[in-house]
Amino acid sequence: MEQVYRLVMSCPDQQGIVAKVSQFIAQYNGSILEANHHTDTQSQWFFMRHEITASSLPFGLATFREAFAPIAKNLDMQWHISDSTVKNRVVLMCSKQSHCVADILNRWHSGDLDCDIPCVISNHEDLRALVEWHGIAFYHVPVGDDKAAHFAKVSEIIAKHQAQTIVLARYMQILPPAVCEQYAGRIINIHHSFLPSFAGAKPYHQAFERGVKLIGATCHYVTCDLDEGPIIDQDVARISHRMQPEDMVRLGKDVEKLVLARGLQLHLEGRVIVHNHKTVILD
Amino acid sequence: MEQVYRLVMSCPDQQGIVAKVSQFIAQYNGSILEANHHTDTQSQWFFMRHEITASSLPFGLATFREAFAPIAKNLDMQWHISDSTVKNRVVLMCSKQSHCVADILNRWHSGDLDCDIPCVISNHEDLRALVEWHGIAFYHVPVGDDKAAHFAKVSEIIAKHQAQTIVLARYMQILPPAVCEQYAGRIINIHHSFLPSFAGAKPYHQAFERGVKLIGATCHYVTCDLDEGPIIDQDVARISHRMQPEDMVRLGKDVEKLVLARGLQLHLEGRVIVHNHKTVILD
Amino acid sequence: MEQVYRLVMSCPDQQGIVAKVSQFIAQYNGSILEANHHTDTQSQWFFMRHEITASSLPFGLATFREAFAPIAKNLDMQWHISDSTVKNRVVLMCSKQSHCVADILNRWHSGDLDCDIPCVISNHEDLRALVEWHGIAFYHVPVGDDKAAHFAKVSEIIAKHQAQTIVLARYMQILPPAVCEQYAGRIINIHHSFLPSFAGAKPYHQAFERGVKLIGATCHYVTCDLDEGPIIDQDVARISHRMQPEDMVRLGKDVEKLVLARGLQLHLEGRVIVHNHKTVILD
Amino acid sequence: MEQVYRLVMSCPDQQGIVAKVSQFIAQYNGSILEANHHTDTQSQWFFMRHEITASSLPFGLATFREAFAPIAKNLDMQWHISDSTVKNRVVLMCSKQSHCVADILNRWHSGDLDCDIPCVISNHEDLRALVEWHGIAFYHVPVGDDKAAHFAKVSEIIAKHQAQTIVLARYMQILPPAVCEQYAGRIINIHHSFLPSFAGAKPYHQAFERGVKLIGATCHYVTCDLDEGPIIDQDVARISHRMQPEDMVRLGKDVEKLVLARGLQLHLEGRVIVHNHKTVILD
Repeated sequence: MEQVYRLVMSCPDQQGIVAKVSQFIAQYNGSILEANHHTDTQSQWFFMRHEITASSLPFGLATFREAFAPIAKNLDMQWHISDSTVKNRVVLMCSKQSHCVADILNRWHSGDLDCDIPCVISNHEDLRALVEWHGIAFYHVPVGDDKAAHFAKVSEIIAKHQAQTIVLARYMQILPPAVCEQYAGRIINIHHSFLPSFAGAKPYHQAFERGVKLIGATCHYVTCDLDEGPIIDQDVARISHRMQPEDMVRLGKDVEKLVLARGLQLHLEGRVIVHNHKTVILD
Repeated sequence: MEQVYRLVMSCPDQQGIVAKVSQFIAQYNGSILEANHHTDTQSQWFFMRHEITASSLPFGLATFREAFAPIAKNLDMQWHISDSTVKNRVVLMCSKQSHCVADILNRWHSGDLDCDIPCVISNHEDLRALVEWHGIAFYHVPVGDDKAAHFAKVSEIIAKHQAQTIVLARYMQILPPAVCEQYAGRIINIHHSFLPSFAGAKPYHQAFERGVKLIGATCHYVTCDLDEGPIIDQDVARISHRMQPEDMVRLGKDVEKLVLARGLQLHLEGRVIVHNHKTVILD
Repeated sequence: MEQVYRLVMSCPDQQGIVAKVSQFIAQYNGSILEANHHTDTQSQWFFMRHEITASSLPFGLATFREAFAPIAKNLDMQWHISDSTVKNRVVLMCSKQSHCVADILNRWHSGDLDCDIPCVISNHEDLRALVEWHGIAFYHVPVGDDKAAHFAKVSEIIAKHQAQTIVLARYMQILPPAVCEQYAGRIINIHHSFLPSFAGAKPYHQAFERGVKLIGATCHYVTCDLDEGPIIDQDVARISHRMQPEDMVRLGKDVEKLVLARGLQLHLEGRVIVHNHKTVILD
Repeated sequence: MEQVYRLVMSCPDQQGIVAKVSQFIAQYNGSILEANHHTDTQSQWFFMRHEITASSLPFGLATFREAFAPIAKNLDMQWHISDSTVKNRVVLMCSKQSHCVADILNRWHSGDLDCDIPCVISNHEDLRALVEWHGIAFYHVPVGDDKAAHFAKVSEIIAKHQAQTIVLARYMQILPPAVCEQYAGRIINIHHSFLPSFAGAKPYHQAFERGVKLIGATCHYVTCDLDEGPIIDQDVARISHRMQPEDMVRLGKDVEKLVLARGLQLHLEGRVIVHNHKTVILD
């Protein structure tokens, strides 16, 4: 894949934003590989993402940032630009179930998921061998009576590995608010239901009780409100009256791992912007 | 289509049910065109549906019922048998929106939906021409301050037309408990969300606010608890951040009419058995 | 809906296209409601579509065209701009089956499909009443031994009604090359299979013979090569071994009408650009 | 999971089959956990599958077979009965790509796929570490100029491990007719297109060229006719004009591994009966 810069921005809507930004890119002969805009007409907010081939520009990221800053300031932007060849550092957290972790690791191992995975943290030992086989550090941090101690240790590991993104790959603990806030917009969870239906514990059992005809999974950013964070992706699978909750658990795994992988991919490519508790997906 | 008898039953599970029923059919040389069973292992309940070609049996429904009654009694069955050539009488109720009514009427008119539609009842005049063009009686029963009067009139029309099934095809009123009970298991509603998410009013606006990535529709039997009845069918459609609530409304219509048509078809073919607030679909 | 101008263009790719176009729009304070680009990296071709609010511009379409022409010429563009309030004139052609025509007419009648439908042409009388009930002219042009006479008459009607788009809504005849060429990129067909599987006659029977597990439908532009035109949209539905070809025909109708409606909607909104026998969908 | 016997049969249709079989089961107090029938009305052929709890029967499989044989003979059945606790021996064959193998191994390892996997055979070394980490033997059998030698070696390994089922998990070689015939109905392949579209080599590139809007995968039994065997399962994923063939390859992997896993599961549970080049799926 060609080296590209991903320029992602959002700002109050006004006329001429695209012109100013594209004029800036054009004046340096930047070659735009992909561009997406969105205007939220309710909140009058504007969103844009560009992929610019690095080879077409006469300078690197540092100079780009400097040169672009006045425009961004003038338009009151929140923005960032990243280099597609600099990998995002993703820490996985899990518990006993392997399907999501195994799926992410296989994608990473076969080159389909473009990131670094410095370590995996779990409150159980079960997945150590799987993780270590991939050459990735595995930390077992048990959850005892002292939850605070658990999370202190977890935070220390995350910090040590300079995680930029945290993926809760069926990690069954609720993160403390301090962690949620520190990594706001960078912690991705997979919930095993079609939210807002069946938030909380044992969603497949809730789905079984209600008699729904489809089960689902939801990939979302974690906030302090459990299962209430901005949704990145969702999907469903058809079930029948023949399925017991344990059958749904098994079928649901396929949806969970797919939705998590898609959500993580979108996040890593800088295609997700959070705005007013919702996401704009620029793909 | 060949004339068939549809024998639908449920009873406490025990060994030998299938043997007894199939033995009964075989002794009269009945030819089974289709058979479906289900055992709910939690409640130890058994469900079965047969399609038997009428021409293979030496007698009609009346004699069948008489001959079969002792077996049914012995097995403590709830059961019924119906003749595929005797059409179910379906009364439609609607309000202003045409998509569900137009879709059902087109299916009926082109011979794809096998039922009689003696009349359509609405609290608005909007759909009169559409309905009458199909040669079907249209009753406009306005909802004023006196809701009781409205429902008395509605009940009278339903009774007069000897409705066996009532379809709420985007009828926006809540039926009184007495009607719900009288036609229990025979009133089908389409709700414009993926229940249990977004029950109640304006579900697309709720979906927009929450930022879900799929919208849905739910076809269910009506009970006294609003949007809580047994679910017959559901489906979803993918949306994007670009869609405003009114776009969801438009896209949702496609899901609503499809899910309602499928649910009604299953009901008319006697494939739906309600058990413990859920449905068993024998297809 | 607000009045917008839809500016749709394609041209050889080069740096600065977006800058030039957005600069043009910005200099007149044009407000961009929606913008989509695409670069085909293989053929080095660029595609773009803008929705600009008419009220934000100081002039109308005629002046826009004049002012924009030099830029377009300079960039070697194929382009057009249209006014969302000027309705496209769509002629429907059909045979005996009603599902696609009824679905399109219902969408049009309820205001969800934004176009004019000056007339419907059919080689059978079956759908006259349905069409005329909507206040639309119906032409019965039988197909006899003299096919040329049939198509001469059809062409005359199309021309008389100044059709901009022709929709073959299960019209079972093959249009002559002259018509295909005259209306290239403006004739939309619905084929009742997932092309390229099962091109030609009786696709559901072909699907039944092959034992596929999903059936589909394909909406495409008509070219002189039967069932080979650029694909606009496709979708599928799951089937089972229980379904006979006639069951597939019935189920397939739901897919056909949905895919045709979606494809037509994309076409009417100017979101479809044909390039090298394929379509770019700017949505 | 409870130990069950799976009784699977097919025979010319006639009246009384279900009665005879269920009578047989009932006379020994067999408890039927699940039952499915199907009658192919075209060929007048009958299909049935029962799950009978082993603990409810007074004898084991050997006696069951003996006692049931006269009935089967009388009805001219093809039939077999298997014990759910006796695992099917599945040999995987692969090449370089890991997604299908990794997915199957993870399902097997986490207990969701109920079979034995005595070995994996590949014409490349790439997946050795992955396979061996799961404690499964890995055989590297290169394909050189002498294809016959390759397949002789492969056949020897398959025979040595007493494979009951062979899964071609993106094994890119064409098996010789002798192997196809020896293991007829027991070799499962995943083809990376929605067959019959894009049979043969490089289906994603074919799909790209044609401009389809959905890509798919097909799980089928292998016969001597390449990509023509009976289809077990299929599914699709939506693509856009933005995707290059390599993007389709990546997205397609998700469909391939899911469809293969579902097809294999159906096969292992004895739910698939091949009849006239098509499959009946009794689920």
